[in-house]
Amino acid sequence: MNPPHNLPTSHDKLLFTPGPLTTSLTVKQAMLRDAGSWHFEFNALVKRLRDEILTLAGLSREAGYECILLQGSGTFGVESVFATCIPPHGKVAVLANGAYGERMAMMLQHAKIEHVVLRNAEDSPNDPAALDRILGEDQAITHVAVVHCETTTGLLNPINEIGQIVKRHRRLYTVDAISSFAAIPIDFAGAGIDYLISSANKCIEGVPGFSFVIARRVALMACEGFARSLSLDLLAQLKAFEKTGQFRYTPPTHSILAFEQALRELDAEGGVLARGARYRRNHEVLVASMKKLGFQVYLDPKVQSYIITSFHFPNDPKFTFNEFYRRLSEKGFIIYPGKISQADTFRIGSIGRLFESDMRQLLAAIAETLTEMGIELEAQR
Amino acid sequence: MNPPHNLPTSHDKLLFTPGPLTTSLTVKQAMLRDAGSWHFEFNALVKRLRDEILTLAGLSREAGYECILLQGSGTFGVESVFATCIPPHGKVAVLANGAYGERMAMMLQHAKIEHVVLRNAEDSPNDPAALDRILGEDQAITHVAVVHCETTTGLLNPINEIGQIVKRHRRLYTVDAISSFAAIPIDFAGAGIDYLISSANKCIEGVPGFSFVIARRVALMACEGFARSLSLDLLAQLKAFEKTGQFRYTPPTHSILAFEQALRELDAEGGVLARGARYRRNHEVLVASMKKLGFQVYLDPKVQSYIITSFHFPNDPKFTFNEFYRRLSEKGFIIYPGKISQADTFRIGSIGRLFESDMRQLLAAIAETLTEMGIELEAQR
Repeated sequence: MNPPHNLPTSHDKLLFTPGPLTTSLTVKQAMLRDAGSWHFEFNALVKRLRDEILTLAGLSREAGYECILLQGSGTFGVESVFATCIPPHGKVAVLANGAYGERMAMMLQHAKIEHVVLRNAEDSPNDPAALDRILGEDQAITHVAVVHCETTTGLLNPINEIGQIVKRHRRLYTVDAISSFAAIPIDFAGAGIDYLISSANKCIEGVPGFSFVIARRVALMACEGFARSLSLDLLAQLKAFEKTGQFRYTPPTHSILAFEQALRELDAEGGVLARGARYRRNHEVLVASMKKLGFQVYLDPKVQSYIITSFHFPNDPKFTFNEFYRRLSEKGFIIYPGKISQADTFRIGSIGRLFESDMRQLLAAIAETLTEMGIELEAQR
Repeated sequence: MNPPHNLPTSHDKLLFTPGPLTTSLTVKQAMLRDAGSWHFEFNALVKRLRDEILTLAGLSREAGYECILLQGSGTFGVESVFATCIPPHGKVAVLANGAYGERMAMMLQHAKIEHVVLRNAEDSPNDPAALDRILGEDQAITHVAVVHCETTTGLLNPINEIGQIVKRHRRLYTVDAISSFAAIPIDFAGAGIDYLISSANKCIEGVPGFSFVIARRVALMACEGFARSLSLDLLAQLKAFEKTGQFRYTPPTHSILAFEQALRELDAEGGVLARGARYRRNHEVLVASMKKLGFQVYLDPKVQSYIITSFHFPNDPKFTFNEFYRRLSEKGFIIYPGKISQADTFRIGSIGRLFESDMRQLLAAIAETLTEMGIELEAQR
């Protein structure tokens, strides 16, 4: 068999993507262990991690919140909230301005859960006023679901403002914070969040394998008997953690060991604010240098997150994304394709174990690649 | 923070469990990498792994089979088959003689899929004659589901004989081979299997993170529009692999890198037959020595697999499982609790990166532990 990767550099290619991310070697080394998932030592670790995620969110079990780990990607976590928490005749208002909002609608469609989608253009934040109107008009709506950082574009939706409206109308509030949690501070109480979903391999910089849901305990405990899926039954998962300390089904033990190390490293970096500051710096260096090279940012800076950034394709017939991507890959840099339906874009992530120096290396490689491709752009301001 | 595990030995405790298992260091070292899940090199690896799993099963895409990887544990894989492949008015006959058969019934209940459960005692194999009768009587039944190795006890169900009956009645056939695949040869065509589920961290000796489903392509392609879950939509997962080469949602990239190495090591060991022979030897050494110590095997040898073995608690008031377990854990050996509802048992697995010498070390530790606990048993024949 051939080696799985054809490595042109002495280390792995750097991942400028929304995940899986480049992680530290020490995080990966934590996986050089085999832990028994039934074993009390492992169960104690899981309990500690659940509590530490709450602490990271500024919450606690005493304050009425629970953290539940679930096997699979972030998408599995989002679907678990819908599958478990929407009552049989519930209805969800989904705010969508990208692929991840649309994905929530698709989940609801598959599960035959009533829903309405409030769409905005991919470059515009969700519209709180429109939500206010529909919640006033449609009493059948029981839940509102929104994506915090819509990684389709990199846009940050106004989850606080939306949360105020959801609370005023006394509905339940679900936030997909998969790509923002642990890098962008979230005011749980202020936004009135009932369920928030994130994942091991985003801003906590663990490896993929599981998602986690932070739930208001009272809200989740009221969902008995609603679950439409056994594997994705979040309440049963919580009850198992409380009763036996265990996952109901085999957990990704190695991902969990890596996650513990990732939390230590987040702590050592200075927590959520320090990590956010590093990502912001990565993003600023990226945008300034890309503009200098002549690239145009897709989003208005007012709604742009520092998680991931979409750039328009250069207006030059010599540019093809495939060639651009492959040439960067050969230099050891993996960027990300676009996902926007209305414009030709590519994306560059600022998250993961990446520093300003990595961004500068990437940008040197991009400049070189443009030259190789014979593309000359005019610097943007 | 404290270290996650309190290690009494210089290596990890050995796991005599049905998974997660003890894996080789080289399998774990394959995870010291960060792969981009969108990247063409990673996609080529996934494609190769899907084909290699088919080869391991004696199948191929040319012969009309597909292998689909799915995030999550084996349970997620089993549920994905039900969630995707049972038509809206379908009905499943579940053969159950342990917790994993019952779990299938629970999945169907959650998904509101019609089903009937044919139960046998936990020490008795599924009854082909009873299935024959019910398939003759109930024309509403569209699918039959069975567990190959019921790890509740270690019992091996007669999947070939059952498959003959399913085929004769022209129904579709699902086999949960999570704990047997790659160690016990399976005759796909002979048994007429339409869907078979297994997992990365069983007899292939990878680490947990994903399951896989081997499906007869024609059967799966006929399931368009049935999916009750987005995350667990097996057909959409296959279509994404075929269209883009990618997982639809973030895959456990590190588990997949480990899996590649695990397949190499399975090949180096001599394949399924050689691995089965090692596990059989582990099991034989275990049973012979445990009997010598005075333990009684729960199952009749005629239905006992070499995957995992249930032992009755010793008939001595000084025996408690908790103390027995803890003392073995302190010596570096993790065994498994029982799951049988009708008898007090514990379980010892023979699978994973374990050899005869490991079994003998475990048995020496068990003998020592009995002495420490002041328990004297009479040798069994």
